[in-house]
Amino acid sequence: MTLKQIDSTDINAMEQRFRAHFINSLSGFKSANLVGTVDANGVSNLAIVSSVFHLGATPPLVGLIIRPDTVPRGTLANIQSTECYTLNHVNSAIWQQAHQSSARYATGVSEFKQTGLSETYVEGICAPFVEQSHLRYALKLREVQPLAINGTILVIGEVIHIQLPHTAIQQDGYIDIESLDTITISGLDSYHRTQSMGRLTYAKPDKLPQLLQTDSD
Amino acid sequence: MTLKQIDSTDINAMEQRFRAHFINSLSGFKSANLVGTVDANGVSNLAIVSSVFHLGATPPLVGLIIRPDTVPRGTLANIQSTECYTLNHVNSAIWQQAHQSSARYATGVSEFKQTGLSETYVEGICAPFVEQSHLRYALKLREVQPLAINGTILVIGEVIHIQLPHTAIQQDGYIDIESLDTITISGLDSYHRTQSMGRLTYAKPDKLPQLLQTDSD
Repeated sequence: MTLKQIDSTDINAMEQRFRAHFINSLSGFKSANLVGTVDANGVSNLAIVSSVFHLGATPPLVGLIIRPDTVPRGTLANIQSTECYTLNHVNSAIWQQAHQSSARYATGVSEFKQTGLSETYVEGICAPFVEQSHLRYALKLREVQPLAINGTILVIGEVIHIQLPHTAIQQDGYIDIESLDTITISGLDSYHRTQSMGRLTYAKPDKLPQLLQTDSD
Repeated sequence: MTLKQIDSTDINAMEQRFRAHFINSLSGFKSANLVGTVDANGVSNLAIVSSVFHLGATPPLVGLIIRPDTVPRGTLANIQSTECYTLNHVNSAIWQQAHQSSARYATGVSEFKQTGLSETYVEGICAPFVEQSHLRYALKLREVQPLAINGTILVIGEVIHIQLPHTAIQQDGYIDIESLDTITISGLDSYHRTQSMGRLTYAKPDKLPQLLQTDSD
């Protein structure tokens, strides 16, 4: 396969939107989540993000990159004032509504109402969950760390409450998120279903990985 | 759909490996990349990672979380000493070899040789690319930032050289990574192909998103 070579000079010469699409595609497939928050007046806010990543299991930490100059501005302010937010997996029944949450609605307007997604609450957790999401969890804010290199903000939260169908949890703790219809994102606006190739056994130097037998086999 | 409720007490009570599988599944689908590096003696190193994420387009920055106590130890040391590394998309032809790169080979042993993946070099870039990957790029180290909260390391690199088939680049800059057979990961060891649902138009408050017409339509 002949590969095109692209260097820094070529990247710098790209038109701004072209470069945004192009560079956003490089990291690979991304997680698709809706961040649910409320402001000081109790107005709910919902924003799609593709920058959520695993940070650690003990304690259970999840990272999220927020770009202050793009839409989820209310999201960051709400997380900082309430120290609480939810993450809700986007599935194929709500992908277009999830995408619509990125529109620049006026302050005081809830994206839940505008997109037709329903908010649901759990006692003791101030942030709203997305009713239509099948895997959703609440986080307590642990750190907000501005990254000096480009002005983005790393938000780190600790998972304190999780909701999911118990049937999706396999015997070893793995959650079959494909069975929950969770989707994935590439670039800025491309959505994809997934198709399992299998799980592999823990890799050891002296033998090749095998397909793991799972609950669903 | 009835959802099981899991709280901090339940999370803390989980057996360690169970919790690792479980919490690693929460963030959603992850990128699948091989990090290529060399050490001071010129011995190459290859490690699969699922923690690469987009950080910004201008300048083109990519983040990577490294856990010092797990396998890609050589990776971090090599990145710090050479300030150079490559990221190579994992595709469905090499997923098992990519997974095998996570085995704990002895120091001085190249994972390229052990897994059967081929290294290829570009003039001016010290780190090896994976020949079998269809989208691969080199990064110059910009920052190594230890995250005090759990001892993981955030590595930030600037993309300086990219190789991919030019046919995968759409008119607006989006790279059709599904056409390159790039795969995605969930949890610690589950691999998935993708199936495009489409791209959506930029969201605006006053109208619903439409399917974007792309080069391949």
